[in-house]
Amino acid sequence: MPREPKNYDHLIGKIKGLSENQLKAHFTLYQGYVKKLNEIEQKLASVDKSTPNYSYNEYSELKRREPVAYNGTFLHEYYFDNIGGDGSPAPENFKQTISGAFGSWDNWIADVKAAAGSAHGWVLTCYGYADQKVRNVLVQSEHHVGLLADTQIIVAIDCWEHAYFMDYGTKKPDYIAAILAGLNWKTIGARFHHTPPPGK
Amino acid sequence: MPREPKNYDHLIGKIKGLSENQLKAHFTLYQGYVKKLNEIEQKLASVDKSTPNYSYNEYSELKRREPVAYNGTFLHEYYFDNIGGDGSPAPENFKQTISGAFGSWDNWIADVKAAAGSAHGWVLTCYGYADQKVRNVLVQSEHHVGLLADTQIIVAIDCWEHAYFMDYGTKKPDYIAAILAGLNWKTIGARFHHTPPPGK
Amino acid sequence: MPREPKNYDHLIGKIKGLSENQLKAHFTLYQGYVKKLNEIEQKLASVDKSTPNYSYNEYSELKRREPVAYNGTFLHEYYFDNIGGDGSPAPENFKQTISGAFGSWDNWIADVKAAAGSAHGWVLTCYGYADQKVRNVLVQSEHHVGLLADTQIIVAIDCWEHAYFMDYGTKKPDYIAAILAGLNWKTIGARFHHTPPPGK
Amino acid sequence: MPREPKNYDHLIGKIKGLSENQLKAHFTLYQGYVKKLNEIEQKLASVDKSTPNYSYNEYSELKRREPVAYNGTFLHEYYFDNIGGDGSPAPENFKQTISGAFGSWDNWIADVKAAAGSAHGWVLTCYGYADQKVRNVLVQSEHHVGLLADTQIIVAIDCWEHAYFMDYGTKKPDYIAAILAGLNWKTIGARFHHTPPPGK
Repeated sequence: MPREPKNYDHLIGKIKGLSENQLKAHFTLYQGYVKKLNEIEQKLASVDKSTPNYSYNEYSELKRREPVAYNGTFLHEYYFDNIGGDGSPAPENFKQTISGAFGSWDNWIADVKAAAGSAHGWVLTCYGYADQKVRNVLVQSEHHVGLLADTQIIVAIDCWEHAYFMDYGTKKPDYIAAILAGLNWKTIGARFHHTPPPGK
Repeated sequence: MPREPKNYDHLIGKIKGLSENQLKAHFTLYQGYVKKLNEIEQKLASVDKSTPNYSYNEYSELKRREPVAYNGTFLHEYYFDNIGGDGSPAPENFKQTISGAFGSWDNWIADVKAAAGSAHGWVLTCYGYADQKVRNVLVQSEHHVGLLADTQIIVAIDCWEHAYFMDYGTKKPDYIAAILAGLNWKTIGARFHHTPPPGK
Repeated sequence: MPREPKNYDHLIGKIKGLSENQLKAHFTLYQGYVKKLNEIEQKLASVDKSTPNYSYNEYSELKRREPVAYNGTFLHEYYFDNIGGDGSPAPENFKQTISGAFGSWDNWIADVKAAAGSAHGWVLTCYGYADQKVRNVLVQSEHHVGLLADTQIIVAIDCWEHAYFMDYGTKKPDYIAAILAGLNWKTIGARFHHTPPPGK
Repeated sequence: MPREPKNYDHLIGKIKGLSENQLKAHFTLYQGYVKKLNEIEQKLASVDKSTPNYSYNEYSELKRREPVAYNGTFLHEYYFDNIGGDGSPAPENFKQTISGAFGSWDNWIADVKAAAGSAHGWVLTCYGYADQKVRNVLVQSEHHVGLLADTQIIVAIDCWEHAYFMDYGTKKPDYIAAILAGLNWKTIGARFHHTPPPGK
């Protein structure tokens, strides 16, 4: 059963600093990833697996690109889900965890900004199951490059040029400031509630 | 507090098809990742974050390489922890989940082998929190390339040349067969027990 | 002696389909690469080389990022140098070589468009010294990914989102059409004149 | 007309420090790249180009992997061609160029060793047409990552684990020393003779 792209039209006009044109272009790109993830999964279901190869093979390429479409799909959903907040403040327990991990709330903000300035890609605040620490992670160069093994993503900020170039050009720091000012803490708080899962 | 590498010497002589020399070389590489992860974390604690840059900046490079050392550390631990089994069979509930995800147990085996033949890197059987499916994932080209967002790793197989070249040369399929025959199902079953975590 | 960025202001208003804002943002990014290439070269001149490392080391990171800044510098120069043509047609000998390599002129155009649709990055028409063939090459994911060993670049088209997103959003094919219509054949012809070099 | 792999059996027994098993395994891998380059070129000749895509498309994947097979083919040929020297010393004009570029011959050796210690991949001494400098270049993570635009390769050293792991395990510096001691300066001198090509 193919996945349907989620509809994020309700965000239009709700994100201070992101124009309708910029958001609509972004939705189009996101929808393309969902469509391709469906296509890849469908092809993988029947592809011949008998001659996999590092240089080139149909199965091998489907597997090589599956994480691009998968992360292109879900990281965008994490992003659209966690922007467009109603102005409510960050929940207390999240602030405490962040302060514990980064030394202070301001340190977290400074690290998000520095990470955003470091790479084309995603900045993700993650909980790592392996070492039980909260970190900012840089997804670099492609949607499937830079992730840590076994994490839960708590905050997702899209720092690709397609997310802001229409509205901000090379003024990326202004875009990041706008996103940080409008995070949807309800969504983020709900994700965080499950971190770490019981029994870990 | 720096992380200590785990000691895996008990695996020597216990893995049918892996020589002492091959295993010891592998332990050396793993220990190098732990050491570097410590170094990176320590440097990140005091590095200047005011001039991040895509092309080059000290903070930016530490963040770019952090996932290499992190995954180089933990994926090796997942691997060493899940080889060297005592011959007990795979747990029933794991077999059922695998059969549900891949159509049959043999399909899973065939997919692991095809994935291993596709890339230098890791083959990971993962549970994805985002779409609640079990998949084989190909970590390609570097330790931080190819991971899916938000997964739990259940089985980890090291397919880098350093894992087998001394004993097998270009006969990688024989290495994969040896690993599959000696998986530690106790470890794998315990990981699986927590998948998905309650409340998800 | 540090390299100075070239001034491309004469292109403003000369490229049908590229606005002043879009071009100026692009120049800013290009100038950043030149600056960083200078910084990297300067640091490499005195950095300690005694403890290189795959996971992280100051020398190693400078070497890892040097090709990003180098290609970010020179591919942009090849691009700005080969756009803004005065409307003169492609030289006959170039057309013949292209027809020989791709079957026809139209096939080359179709392949450029398909390559541009395949990746974020550069599309480069190159002569390969190793096999003496002309090909379109896809620079993918970062400025230093996808290049063939030992080539001469004849045509360079920037397909990164930063090159067109302000003017075209997701309508990348329209951007490519605009660039193809305004190539500077004088520059391209001069490059081509030296391909292949005598004695090869 | 498909390309035939070159036969390098004459190197067996001629390279001090590389066993027959290690070299034969290496030849097998090289032959695989040639075969795959042929397959990719053949498929590209007839593949549909009408729906290229960043996430996944048959044409797009062939183009994405073409440089892997291409460089996997030709970098191996450059490598096998420039090892197995008869003990004759490096040519004077090469030594002068190297001293000019690196400050001294010993500095070049130190930089080759540091580059080899930095990455899985290739270390290439290259002449860059763009800025007319000689540099060591690190090909990192895959055969198509790290190359500079428009270079001529003068010396090629394979630093992938498959090149030495059978004979050296984690003692990579010993392998590099062995290769440096047995370079084929006749081949290298002939390449260098054409650098830079007349008219540049």
